[in-house]
Amino acid sequence: MSKEKTNGAKALLDTLMNAGIDTCFTNPGTSEMHFVAALDKSDMRAVLTLFEGVATGAADGYARIAGKPAATLLHLGCGLGNGLANLHNARKARVPMVNIVGDHAKYHVQYDAQLQSDIETVAKNCSEWVKTSQETSEIGADAAEAIKVATREPNQISTLILPADVSWGEGGQAVSDFSQPASPVASDEKVNKIAEVLKKSGKKVAILLGRRVILEDGLMMASKISETTGAKLFTEVFPTRLQRGAGLPYVERIGYLAEMASVQLSGYDHLLLIDAKAPVSFFAYPDKKSYLVPDDCELHSLVEKEEDALKSLQALVKAVGAENTPPKLNEAKRPELASGKLNAEKIAKAVGALLPENAIISDEAQTSGLKIPVNTAGCPKHDLLTLTGGAIGQGLPVAIGAAIAGRNRPVLALVGDGSSMYTIQSLWTIVAENLDVTTVVMNNGSYAILNIELERVGAEKAGAKAKAQLDISKPEIDFVSIAKGMGMPAERVRTAEEFNKALENAFREPGPHLIDAVVPSEYEGFKLKALPYLLNSLDKIPTPIAKALKNKLAP
Amino acid sequence: MSKEKTNGAKALLDTLMNAGIDTCFTNPGTSEMHFVAALDKSDMRAVLTLFEGVATGAADGYARIAGKPAATLLHLGCGLGNGLANLHNARKARVPMVNIVGDHAKYHVQYDAQLQSDIETVAKNCSEWVKTSQETSEIGADAAEAIKVATREPNQISTLILPADVSWGEGGQAVSDFSQPASPVASDEKVNKIAEVLKKSGKKVAILLGRRVILEDGLMMASKISETTGAKLFTEVFPTRLQRGAGLPYVERIGYLAEMASVQLSGYDHLLLIDAKAPVSFFAYPDKKSYLVPDDCELHSLVEKEEDALKSLQALVKAVGAENTPPKLNEAKRPELASGKLNAEKIAKAVGALLPENAIISDEAQTSGLKIPVNTAGCPKHDLLTLTGGAIGQGLPVAIGAAIAGRNRPVLALVGDGSSMYTIQSLWTIVAENLDVTTVVMNNGSYAILNIELERVGAEKAGAKAKAQLDISKPEIDFVSIAKGMGMPAERVRTAEEFNKALENAFREPGPHLIDAVVPSEYEGFKLKALPYLLNSLDKIPTPIAKALKNKLAP
Repeated sequence: MSKEKTNGAKALLDTLMNAGIDTCFTNPGTSEMHFVAALDKSDMRAVLTLFEGVATGAADGYARIAGKPAATLLHLGCGLGNGLANLHNARKARVPMVNIVGDHAKYHVQYDAQLQSDIETVAKNCSEWVKTSQETSEIGADAAEAIKVATREPNQISTLILPADVSWGEGGQAVSDFSQPASPVASDEKVNKIAEVLKKSGKKVAILLGRRVILEDGLMMASKISETTGAKLFTEVFPTRLQRGAGLPYVERIGYLAEMASVQLSGYDHLLLIDAKAPVSFFAYPDKKSYLVPDDCELHSLVEKEEDALKSLQALVKAVGAENTPPKLNEAKRPELASGKLNAEKIAKAVGALLPENAIISDEAQTSGLKIPVNTAGCPKHDLLTLTGGAIGQGLPVAIGAAIAGRNRPVLALVGDGSSMYTIQSLWTIVAENLDVTTVVMNNGSYAILNIELERVGAEKAGAKAKAQLDISKPEIDFVSIAKGMGMPAERVRTAEEFNKALENAFREPGPHLIDAVVPSEYEGFKLKALPYLLNSLDKIPTPIAKALKNKLAP
Repeated sequence: MSKEKTNGAKALLDTLMNAGIDTCFTNPGTSEMHFVAALDKSDMRAVLTLFEGVATGAADGYARIAGKPAATLLHLGCGLGNGLANLHNARKARVPMVNIVGDHAKYHVQYDAQLQSDIETVAKNCSEWVKTSQETSEIGADAAEAIKVATREPNQISTLILPADVSWGEGGQAVSDFSQPASPVASDEKVNKIAEVLKKSGKKVAILLGRRVILEDGLMMASKISETTGAKLFTEVFPTRLQRGAGLPYVERIGYLAEMASVQLSGYDHLLLIDAKAPVSFFAYPDKKSYLVPDDCELHSLVEKEEDALKSLQALVKAVGAENTPPKLNEAKRPELASGKLNAEKIAKAVGALLPENAIISDEAQTSGLKIPVNTAGCPKHDLLTLTGGAIGQGLPVAIGAAIAGRNRPVLALVGDGSSMYTIQSLWTIVAENLDVTTVVMNNGSYAILNIELERVGAEKAGAKAKAQLDISKPEIDFVSIAKGMGMPAERVRTAEEFNKALENAFREPGPHLIDAVVPSEYEGFKLKALPYLLNSLDKIPTPIAKALKNKLAP
């Protein structure tokens, strides 16, 4: 540990680097200028964004792939506010992150200058740990605490508020010791009790896997248990990072709509949660259930949030005697390329047919993306990153972070026209950093999902004014022009043949590409009859469930 | 008052309409679908935006011109977060606004669903009044309270959080009585005491005018006082809405940089604040003063924040015996159009030469806009709206709201390349609503103001990594393409002749236009020597002050 004293900004940067946090997504202002100046004397990679929501979403995507936090650099309360929606998504996913939010010099606060606001109130919405650093001599220690909170179980978001005078002051000292106790493992007693449930004959058991146990190692263990005990494997509706594809075990995602999830979970006597939450409806609706676990289903949870889920799962494998059971793996299988007028399903087929090895998919395509999972289940191994907190505008920023963390891995960002516009500035950073990100905008001229939601909340007979609130086709958004405006090669396609060719080109040629894919809105006119189609968001459609749903929901 | 009972959403809409709040800037999601559905049965104008920061900024611009609040409709904590920066700007300007933020149904909160977060913490950052409505029967009364808080002095931001079940529940009742006591006027004692200060011979007095008293009526009264007593008139660095131009009194704006403001205020024995704050530095800097009122200058304030500033000023006119003094008015005068390679000053000259009658300028051009004030001082009467809270990304949204409130008034949005990108989605709403907004992007490929700030904080020798954080020229942003992507006619110009023609066309032809004006960064290489140039942000450059500054700052 260097005992060298520097200004506060440099001590902070050095502490981050000492902890292995070597990437920072930024949108600085005056109060962060010392941090910016200190970059010249640091190996920190600083990735400039043109909007703070891009910075926070990129830090989220980075941590999901790198398995370690990135830092963000934000400008006072307003910069933090701009970053809030994607911080929310990261918080819900329990993705580690260390935010550095510049503030006025401590003595300047009393004057209530233009940019003065209560940063801590905003930070509390999205951070488990918030501190305003008070002394330059303490900045290293404060940063170390922020890092420790973020990196131990449960991973959390730390927000360190850095007054300008603490940053420019002298006497800062970097910290390099980040030791803390290892996360505990679930007790033998709990593991054995759950093993008994799994081994009990005649009872139907479902296992819901989350976060730490849906990467390859966790999935392999879970599949051994499933093969040994007959338990069914599920994962959450919006997983943080799911490894999937040929050679990996199959796990069924819980459906987005409560109606689907209820059918998926019906008939189980036990539901075992492993680093996952009991399924609840995304929104509440008049006369529909919020809590989706059936009344007569007993709930178990293998780990508390501060426990090591992977090691606990390993103990469970042993306790059920599944160590030597081979996991059941998906076979390699790709769909055929389609032809004719483009629609969302044909896009899904092309993605399934062409996805490169070792790809990362950032999926925020909403209704247009529902057929992606079933068409990519037999693709080469890949990572899927999803909209964990429901705040749209995440897909493009997450792709930035994933591409930087994944180094040479190809990234596919599937976004809607509506969702992409929240953080469209992302395109600039993708180009500035020359990232191998292929962006597919499913352009249906609509907040299509809200057409379903408008009906589901009971507002069935929407008139022109209400419908206008969901219509983003007047003016039509031309994503080719927007992309070119930020230096990104782009093309618009209207047929499957055009799309297939554009996607093939984009995957073959490293670097940024955008495909503006004009598709019909999937649910226009379908109304509630459309619900069975939503089942396609599952990798496979179990026939009895599909039938039950169709009987239940079709008119 | 109608005693009809409706669902909560309709009762809320009716209450807003009853109070004259007939415009709502929206970006709804599922939890707001009942509000959306209720629009069909209401005369409320609902203006859809593609990003919440556009909605809140537009509501700000609307209220500045309409003199009454607009509503916003935002989607839970994340939607509010996206809108926070422009809510901050409105809060600092004391612009009235009523935010409606949808939330989960009350009974759904316990399940901590994906979009669940603590909305009230975020709302408190930007709102003086926050309430989560608990009962459908109370929603009308809650909305009425929100409206009363927003519309009485001091104007404030109210945020009403609307759980989905309160919105869809039946038994709502609209309120139509919004009566509350009139704002008090400053006491005779205080008015007389201040009049004595103004009338005292041999003392130099400066008057700093803010918010309510920088529209025509207030300026006329202030000028009478100035002409009678010799007091100098100033206004704030970033006024909420300043009426200016030929036929109106001249008022000197406080400079952005502390060095300038200190010189402007030096030598005054008294500083009288009228609905304004004592000037403080925008940021703190090592070894520079934060509080800019000279030590030996005595401070007075005519009104408390809940008092009626305009009526109090009227009383002061009488008390100093200025009723019959004619105000001193600006003469009509326009600059000549320039020619040759384009720069920021030539743009300012063109704006001054061509600005239409009764225009509204939304000024967020930062460094590139510094010569606008001096070149437009003799233009026809116009309104100037500025960056009151310092959170950039305000210029375009404010222009939307101003155009809607101003009905047929032409609006000119002057924005930087950096600042415009925060809320670039604004262009879509300008086109969707076919607003008469001319957008001029001062495209210098840089966060130019930060070049000055980086140096001012003491970080003088910036290296390549630090400078890269201020450089947005790689890739170059092509605003013509971006505008076309959202259906807006646009052209790029590089010479004064091209700019003059483009601006003339845009002003002549109603509807949206964008001019991508390529300009050099004003301060590249100038460093601290540039400071005297910043004086040009004043309408006139008082010679002794200019000399003092040049002597003080030039090397």
